[in-house]
Amino acid sequence: MRDRNHEMANGMKTTITGFTTRDVRFPTSLHLDGSDAMNEAPDYSAAYVTLHTSDPQLAGDGFTFTIGRGNELCVAAINTLAPVTIGMDIDAFGEDPGAFWRRLTGDSQLRWTGPEKGIIHLATAAVVNAMWDLYAKRRQQPLWRLLCGLSPEQIVACIDFRYLTDVLTPAEATELLQANVPTRQQRIEQLLSKGYPTYTTSAGWLGYSDDKLRHQCRDLMARGWSHFKVKVGRNLEDDVRRCRIIREEIGYERRLMLDANQVWDVPQAIEWMRHLAEFQPWFIEEPTSPDDILGHATIARSIAPIKVATGEMCHNRVMFKQFMQAGGMQICQLDSCRVGGVNEVMAVQLLAHKLGVPACPHAGGVGLCEYVQHLAMFDYVCISASLEDRLAEYADHLHEHFVAPVVMKNGCYMPPTVPGYSATMLDESLAKFAFSDTTSGTARSSAS
Amino acid sequence: MRDRNHEMANGMKTTITGFTTRDVRFPTSLHLDGSDAMNEAPDYSAAYVTLHTSDPQLAGDGFTFTIGRGNELCVAAINTLAPVTIGMDIDAFGEDPGAFWRRLTGDSQLRWTGPEKGIIHLATAAVVNAMWDLYAKRRQQPLWRLLCGLSPEQIVACIDFRYLTDVLTPAEATELLQANVPTRQQRIEQLLSKGYPTYTTSAGWLGYSDDKLRHQCRDLMARGWSHFKVKVGRNLEDDVRRCRIIREEIGYERRLMLDANQVWDVPQAIEWMRHLAEFQPWFIEEPTSPDDILGHATIARSIAPIKVATGEMCHNRVMFKQFMQAGGMQICQLDSCRVGGVNEVMAVQLLAHKLGVPACPHAGGVGLCEYVQHLAMFDYVCISASLEDRLAEYADHLHEHFVAPVVMKNGCYMPPTVPGYSATMLDESLAKFAFSDTTSGTARSSAS
Repeated sequence: MRDRNHEMANGMKTTITGFTTRDVRFPTSLHLDGSDAMNEAPDYSAAYVTLHTSDPQLAGDGFTFTIGRGNELCVAAINTLAPVTIGMDIDAFGEDPGAFWRRLTGDSQLRWTGPEKGIIHLATAAVVNAMWDLYAKRRQQPLWRLLCGLSPEQIVACIDFRYLTDVLTPAEATELLQANVPTRQQRIEQLLSKGYPTYTTSAGWLGYSDDKLRHQCRDLMARGWSHFKVKVGRNLEDDVRRCRIIREEIGYERRLMLDANQVWDVPQAIEWMRHLAEFQPWFIEEPTSPDDILGHATIARSIAPIKVATGEMCHNRVMFKQFMQAGGMQICQLDSCRVGGVNEVMAVQLLAHKLGVPACPHAGGVGLCEYVQHLAMFDYVCISASLEDRLAEYADHLHEHFVAPVVMKNGCYMPPTVPGYSATMLDESLAKFAFSDTTSGTARSSAS
Repeated sequence: MRDRNHEMANGMKTTITGFTTRDVRFPTSLHLDGSDAMNEAPDYSAAYVTLHTSDPQLAGDGFTFTIGRGNELCVAAINTLAPVTIGMDIDAFGEDPGAFWRRLTGDSQLRWTGPEKGIIHLATAAVVNAMWDLYAKRRQQPLWRLLCGLSPEQIVACIDFRYLTDVLTPAEATELLQANVPTRQQRIEQLLSKGYPTYTTSAGWLGYSDDKLRHQCRDLMARGWSHFKVKVGRNLEDDVRRCRIIREEIGYERRLMLDANQVWDVPQAIEWMRHLAEFQPWFIEEPTSPDDILGHATIARSIAPIKVATGEMCHNRVMFKQFMQAGGMQICQLDSCRVGGVNEVMAVQLLAHKLGVPACPHAGGVGLCEYVQHLAMFDYVCISASLEDRLAEYADHLHEHFVAPVVMKNGCYMPPTVPGYSATMLDESLAKFAFSDTTSGTARSSAS
């Protein structure tokens, strides 16, 4: 064993000394922001972790996103996972981020509770993302910039290629990445001046009135957006009317997207979309179960040229691999928390590039926009090198709770400049929206 | 609101009044029972729930199975789910078991943490199974017998057909079930005299020596078994030697099965199996990621006539539907806990029947044998009406902790006679193997 105190005294190492978890919930269900056909009344929530270090000025923050009940279970899972970070040397993490990923996801007992899916994987995201936030702060760079400085070999070393090699090997991935190295700088400069394009879901929540829908369309057009998403799937007549309103407002030169949030069976999705085809949507998002790869592929074949988009509930690289192999995911809407954090996002972005599918990350909720701006910029600079059919999602709420919230310009995410992964919430917000154990105490055993 | 006390006083209703959860762990890792290429040192565990009722003589027990760390998260998830049972009328459950299932799995906020996968779904199994245990005890029947007394319409009413209708509709399912009604009784009588056939995994754990392997084969043959499973995938030379030993002991008139526990990538699985084909295994189980439907299908096409078996980590009906559609699951090894409990097991059994795949339920661990005997018997009597290529798994440990453990005869499960789902553990075992919060206290936050 090396003597940590001695090394720290010599400024050689900064290690993780402990962690704090928090259950943070925003009562968004009160205003029906975020209402759709499946998620009737979400309370946007974060299972939030702070990694403390031997440097009192340095801490890493990360969270996973949920929509309310069950957030306490993600917090509990973080409490189970986070102890492996204690004693870790932050710089050693940067030398082999893939080893850290495998240590978290490969625990031979915990693996049974996933593997790499559900609550344990949502919690993995909080810890993995906090570690990247910490490492980027230590390097004094915003995460996107740090990632864009990694060599192809370093990027490949972040990724768990287990179960991917029938479609993508580390050698192929390295080659794909190398092709873009010479032109990285020009894309970085483009991002610095123009930002990364987004689309917004803020117009079309199911809970909104027709008037509010029209008003939102006008407001968002005025602010620079050209892609508009509307929730569908609860009632066909309503959907037709709402699509007509949006097309009246945005015309046909802007893009309309539909989102069914998993409410249909396969035959029903095909039938319903027959009635909405006249509005020429670019894609239908989540037409059925997020697990139904073959079902999505059947739908895609039946409704072409309308595309099928999905991914926000797609839980790991193995599922993404198949969705894209089968043609069931023509727009890849990966989620920065669902898949377990930064490392797996890189894997999915590489798979999407290899299989020719544009990655348009899911965002909204609380903090997801703060995350995905970094990821989309990394994708553009290092992997896809293209903006064709690529937009990151954006939603217009809860940014005020972050120390370094997203900065929008003409409907684009402007590159973050503050070191880290933009995950840190304001102390006041953490305190004000802390969900207390007493509140959830009714969920406990009533006998013993 | 009806007056519950008044009704109880009149003997009209028995309602659920509370619940108790327990974290129960058996230190099986000390002896390497259960060791395989992926699960190096499991501690077989149960997240256990008891539903108390207004009748002091009546309580329902259920559990979900894990392999150690993370069991506390399943217990926490049960604490989140179980309150919905409080106040429920037990007989009302029996009138619409599907409504109870959808209430548990359809919570619009909790759904985000799955949906229907991982920890929240493992916990769902404990609650659903406890409810079935309670209902069967109330009806004073062992669960298999109770299920075999349901009409086709009642069985269909247990099942959530959402996301299934492209392959199986309620009407088709009813028709399939009706065809077997006239012959149910003769199969019940056959079970009562001969039991349900099993295969055993007790011979071939990776941690066992060659001598122990030989000894186990002889012992198990003497006790009536004709199917033998061996763990493979850690080292090819070892696998070849161990397969040779088993074939020397059991000959070629008995069946050999292999189990890789997910350690291979797709190309590696195909290559490795080329070397083991000479031992003419019936199937290879879990050759790769449990999420890789298309990968399993590729392997199956490449190694025919050796079959591909999987399912113990397949998390819901939507995944089973696709695995069987794609030809990636030629033996359906559904797990009684993984899929969320009895209702979903019925859905998977019906899908397997429709798609012509034999269902051979996963068991072992702790208590899974106690569960699956009921499920396999129901499948035989009401759904498949066949024993061809059908065996339930059996493993030879931890039965001593149950109030009504499995009874084996000539390698067959003999039909349970005690009312309920055989889920109840002995009070002494629950006390002795209780995992204390203090033990897991190291996993808590170290700062605040």
